[in-house]
Amino acid sequence: MQGLMMDYQLTLTPFLERAMRMFPKKEIVTKSGPSLERSTYGEVTERIGRLANALARMGIRSGDRVATFSFNNTRHFELYFAAPCMGAVLHPLNLRLPPDQLVYIVNHAEDKVLFFEPQFAPAIEKLSAHFKTVKQYVVMGPTVPETTLSPVVSYEELLRNEIPDYPWPRLQENDAAAMCYTSGTTGNPKGVMYSHRSLYLHSMGLSMADSVGLVERDIYMPVVPMFHVLAWGTPFAAMMLGTSIVFPGPHLTPRDLAELLSAEKVTLTAGVPTLWMGLLNLLDNERYDLSNLRGMVVGGAAAPQSMIEAYEKRHGLKIIHAWGMTEMTPLGTVSNLLRSQEGLPDAERFAIRARQGPPVPGVETRAIDENGKEVPWDNKTFGELEVRGPWIIKSYYNDERTPQSFHDGWFKTGDVVVIDENGSIQIVDRSKDVIKSGGEWISSQDMENVIMSHPKVAEAAVIAVPHPKWQERPLACVVPKPDFKDSLTKEEIYEHLKTKFTKMYLPDDIVFIDAVPKTSVGKFDKKVLRVQYKDYVLPDR
Amino acid sequence: MQGLMMDYQLTLTPFLERAMRMFPKKEIVTKSGPSLERSTYGEVTERIGRLANALARMGIRSGDRVATFSFNNTRHFELYFAAPCMGAVLHPLNLRLPPDQLVYIVNHAEDKVLFFEPQFAPAIEKLSAHFKTVKQYVVMGPTVPETTLSPVVSYEELLRNEIPDYPWPRLQENDAAAMCYTSGTTGNPKGVMYSHRSLYLHSMGLSMADSVGLVERDIYMPVVPMFHVLAWGTPFAAMMLGTSIVFPGPHLTPRDLAELLSAEKVTLTAGVPTLWMGLLNLLDNERYDLSNLRGMVVGGAAAPQSMIEAYEKRHGLKIIHAWGMTEMTPLGTVSNLLRSQEGLPDAERFAIRARQGPPVPGVETRAIDENGKEVPWDNKTFGELEVRGPWIIKSYYNDERTPQSFHDGWFKTGDVVVIDENGSIQIVDRSKDVIKSGGEWISSQDMENVIMSHPKVAEAAVIAVPHPKWQERPLACVVPKPDFKDSLTKEEIYEHLKTKFTKMYLPDDIVFIDAVPKTSVGKFDKKVLRVQYKDYVLPDR
Repeated sequence: MQGLMMDYQLTLTPFLERAMRMFPKKEIVTKSGPSLERSTYGEVTERIGRLANALARMGIRSGDRVATFSFNNTRHFELYFAAPCMGAVLHPLNLRLPPDQLVYIVNHAEDKVLFFEPQFAPAIEKLSAHFKTVKQYVVMGPTVPETTLSPVVSYEELLRNEIPDYPWPRLQENDAAAMCYTSGTTGNPKGVMYSHRSLYLHSMGLSMADSVGLVERDIYMPVVPMFHVLAWGTPFAAMMLGTSIVFPGPHLTPRDLAELLSAEKVTLTAGVPTLWMGLLNLLDNERYDLSNLRGMVVGGAAAPQSMIEAYEKRHGLKIIHAWGMTEMTPLGTVSNLLRSQEGLPDAERFAIRARQGPPVPGVETRAIDENGKEVPWDNKTFGELEVRGPWIIKSYYNDERTPQSFHDGWFKTGDVVVIDENGSIQIVDRSKDVIKSGGEWISSQDMENVIMSHPKVAEAAVIAVPHPKWQERPLACVVPKPDFKDSLTKEEIYEHLKTKFTKMYLPDDIVFIDAVPKTSVGKFDKKVLRVQYKDYVLPDR
Repeated sequence: MQGLMMDYQLTLTPFLERAMRMFPKKEIVTKSGPSLERSTYGEVTERIGRLANALARMGIRSGDRVATFSFNNTRHFELYFAAPCMGAVLHPLNLRLPPDQLVYIVNHAEDKVLFFEPQFAPAIEKLSAHFKTVKQYVVMGPTVPETTLSPVVSYEELLRNEIPDYPWPRLQENDAAAMCYTSGTTGNPKGVMYSHRSLYLHSMGLSMADSVGLVERDIYMPVVPMFHVLAWGTPFAAMMLGTSIVFPGPHLTPRDLAELLSAEKVTLTAGVPTLWMGLLNLLDNERYDLSNLRGMVVGGAAAPQSMIEAYEKRHGLKIIHAWGMTEMTPLGTVSNLLRSQEGLPDAERFAIRARQGPPVPGVETRAIDENGKEVPWDNKTFGELEVRGPWIIKSYYNDERTPQSFHDGWFKTGDVVVIDENGSIQIVDRSKDVIKSGGEWISSQDMENVIMSHPKVAEAAVIAVPHPKWQERPLACVVPKPDFKDSLTKEEIYEHLKTKFTKMYLPDDIVFIDAVPKTSVGKFDKKVLRVQYKDYVLPDR
């Protein structure tokens, strides 16, 4: 027996039409240098129609990839809808990637056109000879600067020549709408191809009161870059709801942000923890009126409990701690308090909110042990987190590495977690970093954090080294602070560790090194150390 | 180009599994006589497994209809999931329908099994000879009362004999999950067949902060009957979110409700306006602590502005005014204030909230004139409301009357509306009642309300009568109050009407009648009057 409900396709086009009709006067603001460029959903949706006509005229067809190299601004937002709603695929490029990865990504995605900010012209010029499929460059501004790129045209000139009406095609919900590449530390980046359906459902997910709860009444400022998992999918939800948006443009110093949050009476913002650490430091020293701000979404890395606490206690500001992945569009968990937790003492409440939290409706989670069995929700047993749901990938784009990321139809996140009785997740390590000692999994992250809390230690990386009896045992690679370079001893580290860990968790050895190797984006690159110490003979302990 | 996201089917089964795992301790309470029966999601989801096993054992197969004749209680909630998640179709019957309609519905739906409350045994006995497909009766209680029904078994006996584990099948999202019949005033009721997908998406819709915003933290009491569009779909959303539920059982006097709302610290409730009018009257005279109540959802009929105002001003309670239809699962609009409306004077804000409001994301709306053209959003021009979306029907179940309800893929609601610049809808009449005079549409409802505000009038119905020049003109059928039965004059009514309407809107004639004919559920049955006056010769005016 079939249900008899409309075969209504979940695509982004109704979001566009809804905002055009219902919210034409709502504001969209972009910080551009010292000034603010103000426009409205009415103007922007009209420009989106012009842009779609321009894309069609330049030969962009259904499924073609439209790349962007841009900041958080209104033009970028226009591309977020013009490309997917005309049937093409939006592809924002990560501004921070090294040139070789950018070239790989543009060629792998087979981008047909590249929209970029004027100031990136010199950088793009250097790469363009390596781009195999790009047929058109568009400068995201009123004019074209002096450049060797060709053919090239300015965004505003493009729009001037077009009409606002575009015959939006009837898309199917599983059609591709956008793509992003992961910036993995191993091998080439992998492409994630979002469908219209996944972005539609994810927008509803973000709007649920138990999740981020975005509403029409919000004035929302996405600080998370629009190339970073599509600004966490929030621009799509904003269009759906008619939420006013403040795009912060390229300048993201704490002072820039504080001034903009205050001046534009922003109610909700979103960004990575580093950003909010900087803002916290500023707010501790200078006064800004952030009384309209109801929430600050934090994702991309774990929000330290101390930061959540500091914002709430010192500034009355609420951190909305979320976790997700590029492969998850990205919303996975939001660490809101449950009803039963609301009355708990401060310390417990903040500890709960510093966890990644329970999955939002739409996302299913489980943690799996070495034998492929689900681990209990006892908040102790380690397992690799696997996820499933309508906005989670089923495969990477044209990538033979896909199979290793899936297990029985579930996506393997690569995170090692514990899960408590409420289904709240706490990430304890990456699965490639966890030390599998006999049946026991040891978190390298936990141990690193404890070692780095020693006053004489600058950095520490804990890695697994092969062991004849235990399979793997931990080796701690420690960088002393300059003043203690020659004086810090293994015994001091062990004494410190013993206050937190029982004997079986202690590293089998400690080596002192000059620095922990880093990736291009500044993260610890432990695979270099693992290679270096793969034959290291651990002492008997 | 296809998106590469999981082919994850949107079914109710993940809601069930989610609550089972994440919220086993959350409470589900049913008022049963003077006492409260307390259980938990842990217990209830276990019983749902037993119930599914019992359904399978009694021969219920994929697609079979499982009928209920019951109140708002925990057993009914168990059926809400056991039937759909095992692949069958839940079919709650409207307790208030006349016997002939019930028989029609049960036979038309081909219900295989009928679950009913013990006190309805005598009523069911009278009808059972007419049921052509019912093969099994189940009494929703611990034992079977003295009855001629056969075969019959008690619910608790059924569950006692089963195990809680059930091998939930992998369903497809377009599979039928539940059905309800509309109680139209014309002809036989029409069946609406909800899919798993529509109930899943509708649950997300209800949970959006810009809609009803149901959350885990709520303690929710559905007063709207579970046979009335599945209690507006709210029990599915509650399972998804792990929201505590208080089922009020059969006794719904204002005092019953006030005591339960207070004792159980309910945060959100939902029901029809009549119910809340009764409660308002009680609260005006007696004190109850309803300080936990954050919202009262009103639907099923328009909430009078005076009621919205009275609750807010006198009791600090917020009415969440919503509109929908059986054919829409039912959520269509929620009359929340927009950001731009928050600062308006009280009178304007309450007038806005008394409208049906803007459509929630997921629902598309337009209003169409006689020529099939869309009318402008000027808050003046009448048009028939048409809707489209993923939780709106595409056809009635086995019903040849289906085509007349659709227009170009849109569902014709049968409501005549005006729409303002924000897309907010106000219903002015039913399309069968509106008087089409030349190019102008005249609202019979508006005129009835004005006539009924005359101190000497008890009831009034305004109907269209054929007219040689204008196609249709209004005729007012007026019932004087007993004391004015012989003294009330047409002139008095006209004088009163002239204060509100210009000449072209005034009825061409007024007739005095003894009573307005009523339907079985007590609504004005204007079609009887239309038949009676179809050849009425209107005077020249």
